[in-house]
Amino acid sequence: MNSRGHPEPDSESPPTIPSSPRTPRMKVSSKLNRWSMGRALRSGAVKIDRQTLRTDNNDNPCRQVTSEEADRKTSAIEDGFRDDVAGKSIYMVSDGTGWTAEHSVNAALGQFEDPLVNRGFPVNTHLFSWVEDEEKLIEIIKQAAKQKAMCFYTLANPSMSKSAKEACDLLGVLSVDILGPIIQGIASHLGVSPSGLTRGAAGRVKTLNDAYFKRIEAIEFTIKQDDGTLPENLGKADIILVGVSRTGKTPLSTYIAQKGYKVANVPFVMGVEPPKTLFDVEPRKVFGLKIQLVVLQAIRRTRAKTLGVDTVGENRYSGFDLVRKELDFAAKIYAKNPGWAVIDVTNKAIEETAAVILRLYHDGSDSSTSVPCISKRF
Amino acid sequence: MNSRGHPEPDSESPPTIPSSPRTPRMKVSSKLNRWSMGRALRSGAVKIDRQTLRTDNNDNPCRQVTSEEADRKTSAIEDGFRDDVAGKSIYMVSDGTGWTAEHSVNAALGQFEDPLVNRGFPVNTHLFSWVEDEEKLIEIIKQAAKQKAMCFYTLANPSMSKSAKEACDLLGVLSVDILGPIIQGIASHLGVSPSGLTRGAAGRVKTLNDAYFKRIEAIEFTIKQDDGTLPENLGKADIILVGVSRTGKTPLSTYIAQKGYKVANVPFVMGVEPPKTLFDVEPRKVFGLKIQLVVLQAIRRTRAKTLGVDTVGENRYSGFDLVRKELDFAAKIYAKNPGWAVIDVTNKAIEETAAVILRLYHDGSDSSTSVPCISKRF
Repeated sequence: MNSRGHPEPDSESPPTIPSSPRTPRMKVSSKLNRWSMGRALRSGAVKIDRQTLRTDNNDNPCRQVTSEEADRKTSAIEDGFRDDVAGKSIYMVSDGTGWTAEHSVNAALGQFEDPLVNRGFPVNTHLFSWVEDEEKLIEIIKQAAKQKAMCFYTLANPSMSKSAKEACDLLGVLSVDILGPIIQGIASHLGVSPSGLTRGAAGRVKTLNDAYFKRIEAIEFTIKQDDGTLPENLGKADIILVGVSRTGKTPLSTYIAQKGYKVANVPFVMGVEPPKTLFDVEPRKVFGLKIQLVVLQAIRRTRAKTLGVDTVGENRYSGFDLVRKELDFAAKIYAKNPGWAVIDVTNKAIEETAAVILRLYHDGSDSSTSVPCISKRF
Repeated sequence: MNSRGHPEPDSESPPTIPSSPRTPRMKVSSKLNRWSMGRALRSGAVKIDRQTLRTDNNDNPCRQVTSEEADRKTSAIEDGFRDDVAGKSIYMVSDGTGWTAEHSVNAALGQFEDPLVNRGFPVNTHLFSWVEDEEKLIEIIKQAAKQKAMCFYTLANPSMSKSAKEACDLLGVLSVDILGPIIQGIASHLGVSPSGLTRGAAGRVKTLNDAYFKRIEAIEFTIKQDDGTLPENLGKADIILVGVSRTGKTPLSTYIAQKGYKVANVPFVMGVEPPKTLFDVEPRKVFGLKIQLVVLQAIRRTRAKTLGVDTVGENRYSGFDLVRKELDFAAKIYAKNPGWAVIDVTNKAIEETAAVILRLYHDGSDSSTSVPCISKRF
């Protein structure tokens, strides 16, 4: 055990990127997931430097809300988990919403799925948004130093960004400027200076322009058309998703709508003819969702359990026979409409399927396109 | 005019960041917006090097889909606009969905609102997703070189990332690695190596875990509760938004739902008592939206025009009297419920209001919190 109470890393699979001296490598037994680790700590099965724990707790700047799921939150609080016990902290500081930092760090964490998921290697992220004065900024960085956290920042104000870098260097906090290199790249490419204005600044051009209102309209349109309602409006949609129940049409629709597209979705139900208007729209706008039989069955079983239905018989919602028949029913409609793109959503996250659909939606033009892409004009 | 047919930059407001020699600064007259510039070009009012244009057109790898709004798209095609005529191109290359690159570059473009919006300085972005082999990567970078574009990339595979850097350097394409520094920072902080696996790779841990399904559930819950439906379910929501019509409850709800929170929204309608269940939920979960009278009136006028209603009288939907009375009605309810946070949404974008709400939602705990933040555990 090292001085911070973590088990020393074992000798297998040495990291190729050297760890900094102030951030000792950690690895907990693969038998202990993050919650069982907490329990093990309380029960004394794993030893911990209690002095360190007590000191660190007092400095914890955020309550332990693990967000996104209420029960995860409860578990965390009940377990009395703290950043420095069995995890590392990542601070994200923004003078705006902070969503860019959150999005980028989440994407990067995808490169550490194995240690995070399989090796009980918890990471705590703390997102500080609307940090628009230096005093608050320095307070956060001091806190990061105490927690031995690293710090990402997206600060539009160049003087804030400079202060962040200097304070982090001074306090020995590993820091990465997420937005700076991107802004500098664009500035150099366009040959104009960035405004340096934060989102909340008075001088910022307001984002509530036509494009913004069209995005709002797209979201409202999408919600109204959900689940096959108002088939007479299908012609007004940019994108129409079709598929059997539990292929993810609704979440996918709202995700794509957030990007400004009017999306309608039409469920394919065994023995029910899809609305005639569906076959009148441009085929390139229609996307059929397909999924592997066993995966759909498993998803439906979970869903049925949640709803408290689906108890017996082969013709039940998650029954093999009905699921197979419904998929066949959908497959036949797809076969009759070769102009529709059919997307396999098996094991795909919403954002992955959305990326596939939008690339196809923007593809297929008259040009000598070598590689399909999504183009926009600002 | 320089060799590429752009007006030379004038002497005012020199950029503080030096432009690279291969990317001449451009500035078109502030009297010409991006579309009128296209028209001016066609009419001969602005001269252009036709040879350059023709050559560039042949190499354009993407059709000019300006996305997000169908009519913007149509205009672009009709105008025969091409990247190199009166705009600069930005390429984004990803071996995954590409959303991180898109999100980050959009955020950075917010620093150039003045040249983009007020000075008719169009920028074209091209997002290439699922670029998983080197051949395709090099093809895209060659294209970028021909279009004198710059290139951002988010490539999880380190050998692809290295190739992108080398090819860009070799071909004189200004490039910025968006994801690399973030991944390296985390690797160094955690003391573990990144997997190097792309989103589509077989070895990637599947993201369809419990948290993922809860996110889906949150989205479905949110859509079902939209616009005050099912008031009996308010107790099940994580967050409840209340406010008069056109304060943006619906788009805000779906945006927050995408982040995994169950959101319900309840409209406040003049003279209609809100559902009793609203007053039974924890006040910290309820967020009242307020907005400036004149701004709401303007939004409602636009909305009424779209719907083709709201023709006469002071008691009409956008009438000064009704709008004022409704806002007063809401303000009185807010005053009676001091535990609710009241958020001013005037001129705020959805993502901005969402950032304010989620910070408040995660704040107010028992700890000695110095700066409020949103914490998560991975």
